[in-house]
Amino acid sequence: MPIHTPDSLAPAMDIPDLAAKVLAGEMKSVARAIRLVEEPSAASQALLDLIWPHVGRAQRIGVTGPPGAGKSTLTLQLARRYRAAGPGVGIIAVDPSSAVSGGALFGDRLRMGEIEMDPGVFIRSMATRGIGGGLALCATEAADILDASGKEVIIFETVGIGQLELDVVSAVDTLIMVTLPNAGDMVQAMKAGALEVGDIFVVNKADLADAALMKADLEAVLRMQGPSAPWQPPVELAQARSGIGVDAVFAHIQAHRSYLLANGRIEQKRKNWIAGRVQKIVNQRLIGRFWTQDRKKRLEDLLRDPFSGLSASQVASNLLDD
Amino acid sequence: MPIHTPDSLAPAMDIPDLAAKVLAGEMKSVARAIRLVEEPSAASQALLDLIWPHVGRAQRIGVTGPPGAGKSTLTLQLARRYRAAGPGVGIIAVDPSSAVSGGALFGDRLRMGEIEMDPGVFIRSMATRGIGGGLALCATEAADILDASGKEVIIFETVGIGQLELDVVSAVDTLIMVTLPNAGDMVQAMKAGALEVGDIFVVNKADLADAALMKADLEAVLRMQGPSAPWQPPVELAQARSGIGVDAVFAHIQAHRSYLLANGRIEQKRKNWIAGRVQKIVNQRLIGRFWTQDRKKRLEDLLRDPFSGLSASQVASNLLDD
Repeated sequence: MPIHTPDSLAPAMDIPDLAAKVLAGEMKSVARAIRLVEEPSAASQALLDLIWPHVGRAQRIGVTGPPGAGKSTLTLQLARRYRAAGPGVGIIAVDPSSAVSGGALFGDRLRMGEIEMDPGVFIRSMATRGIGGGLALCATEAADILDASGKEVIIFETVGIGQLELDVVSAVDTLIMVTLPNAGDMVQAMKAGALEVGDIFVVNKADLADAALMKADLEAVLRMQGPSAPWQPPVELAQARSGIGVDAVFAHIQAHRSYLLANGRIEQKRKNWIAGRVQKIVNQRLIGRFWTQDRKKRLEDLLRDPFSGLSASQVASNLLDD
Repeated sequence: MPIHTPDSLAPAMDIPDLAAKVLAGEMKSVARAIRLVEEPSAASQALLDLIWPHVGRAQRIGVTGPPGAGKSTLTLQLARRYRAAGPGVGIIAVDPSSAVSGGALFGDRLRMGEIEMDPGVFIRSMATRGIGGGLALCATEAADILDASGKEVIIFETVGIGQLELDVVSAVDTLIMVTLPNAGDMVQAMKAGALEVGDIFVVNKADLADAALMKADLEAVLRMQGPSAPWQPPVELAQARSGIGVDAVFAHIQAHRSYLLANGRIEQKRKNWIAGRVQKIVNQRLIGRFWTQDRKKRLEDLLRDPFSGLSASQVASNLLDD
């Protein structure tokens, strides 16, 4: 039976039919399915439940780094490289300044040409919805759709290191950190803990001054960080725009994949990200259920005179009947 | 009776005594209290409860913007300006690259000299604790301590527009967005919804090309955004390093304060941020209580074969006994 949704494109969308078309790899249906999961609803959940047994085959790669580091360019170059080797590629850009997602007007001007026209490549940009909005919440769900549709490689392009990006980053097999030959960026990334989560590091625009020094510094910090780690994150110099270093990055990705596959780490990694998603869903439901109209009203009443005597923590205890 | 805490500085800290000293404005005790609230505990909560009735008098100002925009410089210039007018100032830097917080090694080199030595100024930098860590969680609590201690002005310096920064940003009376004459930054800020929350905009380093154009563009966008809003956010050109424009920004802050005070908006604003804090505390407790060892074990069991058939949402339903 069709499930009725508010989606204007489909007043009465047939979810099992849509799921079947996604699994058959029909790209128009994939696009439609991704639009559907961008607005959580009973229908989008039904779709995700249906495709779930077909999720988990794609290789998921994250490309992250500060604005201007050349993430879009590297992403497109990697997509080209994968296409040349055969696999279908999905790209999900969750970066408001991304050249891929349309920031190209102001950003990088590598034209995508053949990549955009290639039916083996699906590009989806996720717009932000205001500060702290649901930015990355649906990015992993969109990846599940692409995964179930048969895309063998999915690349997330995402800026920076906020909580939202972290959700994306924790759901990839291999995380590539792109940086510029600029010590300030590195120090900031280090302080934010970014060096601890990167699997491959790329110093892009390596024609700029200090690129070799930056590479050496990064390598030193990474060695200090995990001198006996079984995977030593490589640092690669690149000029993504002209393609220099892209093959080397590609080789590192494949090496990292072999490493993950060889010792069962990939299952553990995926269990971790699914566990994270379950926890997030549970927490959202717990919170949604607690905040009834009645409790919202009680909160309002308790804060009528906000600095009267009850601190925020005491008001919380009151609401929780502690 | 003293409450025992794991704080190495005070194996048996006398919380009521500490609270009394904070309220008396003893800055050594203020520093100690801030260190205490940076690690949530029964003792830190007891302290916050005790000082709460004395919180809410300080003017809270946020200075936010991308790295390199000159936030630290503007923050210090504003602190100087306030000191010249009399009030005690507290500065809380929650930016890993902040010149104020010690990123000065690589960042801006305005030396703080007299500001650092001025007993009327208290500067506290909050280090990040890894990705998505408790960065800003204690920043508002630290501000409460400074507020209760009698500081009349509190300035938060914070980078960017992540979820963590948003918590800080939503707890200020006046938010200053600092930007550079760079259209890319503005487009990114716009997409992230930053233009909707700023009260005052500063185009810093206005000696760079296109500053006047940037100001005009920003004004146009802001007019479009809220043509009939009672507060029209002003856009000011500045060169914070040499002090140009700082008096004008200062005047805008005071004008915004008058606007907030005149029509009771300030009470509403503060009720909103306290409500936000209550909700956050409630949500944290709900989540903490749900995830018992037993439920964590059940989650692990359910994910033994992660792509078997149950989707993340279905596993969540199982755990919630839906």
